[in-house]
Amino acid sequence: MISKNKLKELAAYRLQKRCDEEAVFVVEGPKLAGEALASGFGIRTVCATAEWREGNGERSMACGEFYEVTEAELERLSNMKAPNQVWMLVERKGLDDFKDLGDSEGLVLALDRIQDPGNMGTMMRTADWYGIRHIVCSKDTVSCYNPKVVQASMGAVFRTRVDYVDLPQWLAGCGMPVFGATLNGEPLTPGAELVSDSHPAVLLIGNEGRGISEEALAAVTRPVTIGNIGGTAESLNASVAAAILIDRLIG
Amino acid sequence: MISKNKLKELAAYRLQKRCDEEAVFVVEGPKLAGEALASGFGIRTVCATAEWREGNGERSMACGEFYEVTEAELERLSNMKAPNQVWMLVERKGLDDFKDLGDSEGLVLALDRIQDPGNMGTMMRTADWYGIRHIVCSKDTVSCYNPKVVQASMGAVFRTRVDYVDLPQWLAGCGMPVFGATLNGEPLTPGAELVSDSHPAVLLIGNEGRGISEEALAAVTRPVTIGNIGGTAESLNASVAAAILIDRLIG
Repeated sequence: MISKNKLKELAAYRLQKRCDEEAVFVVEGPKLAGEALASGFGIRTVCATAEWREGNGERSMACGEFYEVTEAELERLSNMKAPNQVWMLVERKGLDDFKDLGDSEGLVLALDRIQDPGNMGTMMRTADWYGIRHIVCSKDTVSCYNPKVVQASMGAVFRTRVDYVDLPQWLAGCGMPVFGATLNGEPLTPGAELVSDSHPAVLLIGNEGRGISEEALAAVTRPVTIGNIGGTAESLNASVAAAILIDRLIG
Repeated sequence: MISKNKLKELAAYRLQKRCDEEAVFVVEGPKLAGEALASGFGIRTVCATAEWREGNGERSMACGEFYEVTEAELERLSNMKAPNQVWMLVERKGLDDFKDLGDSEGLVLALDRIQDPGNMGTMMRTADWYGIRHIVCSKDTVSCYNPKVVQASMGAVFRTRVDYVDLPQWLAGCGMPVFGATLNGEPLTPGAELVSDSHPAVLLIGNEGRGISEEALAAVTRPVTIGNIGGTAESLNASVAAAILIDRLIG
């Protein structure tokens, strides 16, 4: 059971601002909730239906607060069109807490002004698949804690350090080659670059419509392109371009 | 100016069923509308704001019917959160009309039960970039004329033949090697397979959550996998996996 007041209090976390202020994020659905419980992240609050509680009784005991809710109550909390059994408030980790992530495969992903939450989450998911543990973003890139990003990341949010920085400055000082995805760079040959832990590099992906900003482009040492074989499409989706370039660099 | 009755009549095309019955589809926004006008597809109806009309006066004369509408009227027609200047009803082409599409690069993309419109549109966009002109789908794959698919395809809908067929049967009879994206196939080495017009092949991508169906899998001659370097992610996004495999086969 949950009181009306508590429900109202928790529904306020639909606002990203509220989540930012308290350094928490919302996780929804049994699959992601399971990843959250296994992740070692602090779970502040869980609201779940009887169905979820029955399947996760022991695990739910490990959480800060637990409220059993009805479908209608879950709907009031949820950011999703079809709320699914469980809603959680998870505590964000500090950047230092990601130190034990292990092998980074030598590639850092840098994102300049990515706006679409689906693209952001998908790039985090792809990075996770390829063992990339560090993503550096311009300050105006969409938050990795946006609920749609968290969903699209499919759990990568628990395994990836995401920094928001002055990106041109960071790139200029990083001391690594910076591959930048452009429409008129050199073709990047799969496997030719040998990026690895002993030869680390950065891959920079720009905004969906406008590409890499002039300021960030100034720090790119290797402008690269995926050959436009068809000759008819104007560009690739940003998360697709990122995946192909990651695959060519370390796949 | 548009009459109340006409607006009501056109607003009915928000229903996919109505569009299917009359073999039309909705195109929105100046960028896609420009592609539609240049595509050679028949344009049945255009509703646009004064702003769009001023920039496209001559081109809009080539359309069947033209109505100048207000922002509020455009909102009534639109499928989008932020309607943008122009809404069009475009006539679908028959499959035979795609015969002059030219080089297919030898690869046919086959989609088994893809559900997410964003994934479908993104795969059409990627195919377009790589010169793949033919996509074969199971009958329960999302329609390539779904408005969200059309938007995500970024114009590829005008350049790609998309068939909806009994997919297992089509695969079994296609006479080409069928590469199937699976989680436990052989690793696919970039450039090792030499798919080309003289060595054509099919790449089969399965449903977002459930992968390739048993029936379709029976027709796969080469189950292939993208190596899970990180070892932590469960899978890749379907449109990302498609892009990486296309790139490894013909990039």
